[in-house]
Amino acid sequence: MLKRIYHLGYAVEDIEAASRFYRSNFGAEPTEPEVVEEQGIVAAMFRVGESMIELVQPIHPDSPVGKFLEKRGEGVHHVAYEVDDLETALAELKNNGVEIIDEEPRTGVGGTRVAFVHPKSAFGVLTELVELPDRGG
Amino acid sequence: MLKRIYHLGYAVEDIEAASRFYRSNFGAEPTEPEVVEEQGIVAAMFRVGESMIELVQPIHPDSPVGKFLEKRGEGVHHVAYEVDDLETALAELKNNGVEIIDEEPRTGVGGTRVAFVHPKSAFGVLTELVELPDRGG
Repeated sequence: MLKRIYHLGYAVEDIEAASRFYRSNFGAEPTEPEVVEEQGIVAAMFRVGESMIELVQPIHPDSPVGKFLEKRGEGVHHVAYEVDDLETALAELKNNGVEIIDEEPRTGVGGTRVAFVHPKSAFGVLTELVELPDRGG
Repeated sequence: MLKRIYHLGYAVEDIEAASRFYRSNFGAEPTEPEVVEEQGIVAAMFRVGESMIELVQPIHPDSPVGKFLEKRGEGVHHVAYEVDDLETALAELKNNGVEIIDEEPRTGVGGTRVAFVHPKSAFGVLTELVELPDRGG
């Protein structure tokens, strides 16, 4: 049911410095940092195989990522997996008593549908499930 | 230079419970937990796309993973990337002043060669680089 690691979210204090780090040490090509106002973050991404690394810096200390940084410091903030069918996945999780942050899928970047599983239920890992838009004709 | 996410290491308190969680909610098929004495852990793995998830439970509280759990609680412990040429990667990192835990590659599971980058240098992410054995003839 988990098709691939869609992305890893890394919480960082300084997205420019983090982008430089991955560019100069690992030949990665992070995108230009982009503000995502409603999440209170600046984000930049680069590809690794079939996955992406998403560098995330808070723009407000009281945003979720800002609070994460204050509490835990820099590091892996969340793990996103691609799934085929998000509705079915959520129904099964709910049925199994797993704590979901998003009871209903919400819209993510690029027409994706996403939902987060609470880290309390997922052994400390803030887990995102992502369904890609149907590209079929 | 980073070819793919080779695996994610998840530190857990109870590997049996974590294995059950991924099996019953996500259809994953974790291997039987196996003791790795020299690292002071029990580990089980399952595949997600081109990557693996490695569930890791300490067998001693004073093992590195045991200390991680005590300090940070359950969650993502490390991220391993496959690289083509570990020697070259390490030389470049050292040249750039990045703090490496393993100055020289050491032998990992299945004839791999591995080295860890210190999380202080990698924005809080304990980063493992893995070179696969040459299967060519």
